[in-house]
Amino acid sequence: MKNGKVYIIGAGPGDWELITVKGLKRIKEADVILYDLLAPSALLKFAKKDAQVICVGKADGLHLLEQAQINRLIYEKARGNKIVARLKGGDPLVFSHGIEEALYLKKRGIPFEIVQGVTSAFAAPESFGIPLTRKGRYSSIAVLTGRKSNGGPIDAPDCDTLVYLMAVGNIRNVIKALSKSGRKKNTPCAFIEKGTTPQERIVTGTLGNIAAKAVRYAVKPPAVFVVGNVVRYAKRIHGH
Amino acid sequence: MKNGKVYIIGAGPGDWELITVKGLKRIKEADVILYDLLAPSALLKFAKKDAQVICVGKADGLHLLEQAQINRLIYEKARGNKIVARLKGGDPLVFSHGIEEALYLKKRGIPFEIVQGVTSAFAAPESFGIPLTRKGRYSSIAVLTGRKSNGGPIDAPDCDTLVYLMAVGNIRNVIKALSKSGRKKNTPCAFIEKGTTPQERIVTGTLGNIAAKAVRYAVKPPAVFVVGNVVRYAKRIHGH
Repeated sequence: MKNGKVYIIGAGPGDWELITVKGLKRIKEADVILYDLLAPSALLKFAKKDAQVICVGKADGLHLLEQAQINRLIYEKARGNKIVARLKGGDPLVFSHGIEEALYLKKRGIPFEIVQGVTSAFAAPESFGIPLTRKGRYSSIAVLTGRKSNGGPIDAPDCDTLVYLMAVGNIRNVIKALSKSGRKKNTPCAFIEKGTTPQERIVTGTLGNIAAKAVRYAVKPPAVFVVGNVVRYAKRIHGH
Repeated sequence: MKNGKVYIIGAGPGDWELITVKGLKRIKEADVILYDLLAPSALLKFAKKDAQVICVGKADGLHLLEQAQINRLIYEKARGNKIVARLKGGDPLVFSHGIEEALYLKKRGIPFEIVQGVTSAFAAPESFGIPLTRKGRYSSIAVLTGRKSNGGPIDAPDCDTLVYLMAVGNIRNVIKALSKSGRKKNTPCAFIEKGTTPQERIVTGTLGNIAAKAVRYAVKPPAVFVVGNVVRYAKRIHGH
């Protein structure tokens, strides 16, 4: 049996128009589309009429299939001489299982290609006018996880701008790590929910009050948590 | 005179197909396109027949126009009821003057929109199979500059993966900062030149030998410098 090819595609941060031209092209060509819940479902309307479209999870806390099953499924579809689009939210190699899928396919001799995507870590703040850097003032960015899969301590490295993914449920521990690293209570920060989509929402605050505000405004995962003076631009640019 | 609108667009990392669907749509609609040399010139062929297309710089070390002149030019074009596409390499708010352009327009009441792009900081390593994170192992990323515009010291924060932009000419000082922060000489690292384009090239090494290798293989700016154990995946995935 001839092997097909797998495209491991970043669908971008939420707005479907923020997928790349290449990513959309691959969706249109695909015989099989395996998509995560975080990938914009609007993209599925570009599938070929006879394409097989399968949701394989996963949103925060909801895994339809375990990763080992997903790997196996991608492999089986590709083995049958099929073009497979593996559609993931954001960028496929930033806090994602994309590299595991790539290694699994590599080992089994299935051709694959990474199609990069716009990461929500950057795009969500930007959609509220928050830049990641400012020349001469803020020149280091960290992208981090608010919950370590191995249960380890939360990182709070010495960077001007910090962006946490998966921080909603664990925000008090994230704040603790930031305080321990010397950040003051009045450091600006914000949660951005559903960034780049029509439902996007920002909750701004400080390290001293953001945890309470997240509860008050019922911030839901997935949301991006951004910390640093760059957050002030949301007001200057966007009126928030 | 009625005001037009300015789209501050990230053209992506190099491969023109890695622009977003939204970014390409705005290029097709624009009356005026102001582009940086780092934006893929292949995108200009999508301009309207009667669009005005202006190169405003800037590549490393070559500024055709100063930033103040660029701001003024964008403003003047938009004031004349024109749709202006301001096309920048990578993402418009990551190590870019995009936020300065946004603030300048905001102050003058010109409507504008940020159209996010794929950053070369992530896309260039990924095009050689280097992920930015790996679940349970490498879970913190820093994006940094290899040359501070204010002449300040180079950052080397405590993250698993570090990506430096603009590091080619200043690599010895970048290595010094990394050594000072406790990184060992055998830490894997790589330069990626023209990532995601047909001319892309990777030079892998260690902190102990990469500066000499950069000279031997004549690495030219702009190139992305990536540091950390994730660099090993280039060999596993891509054969480098």
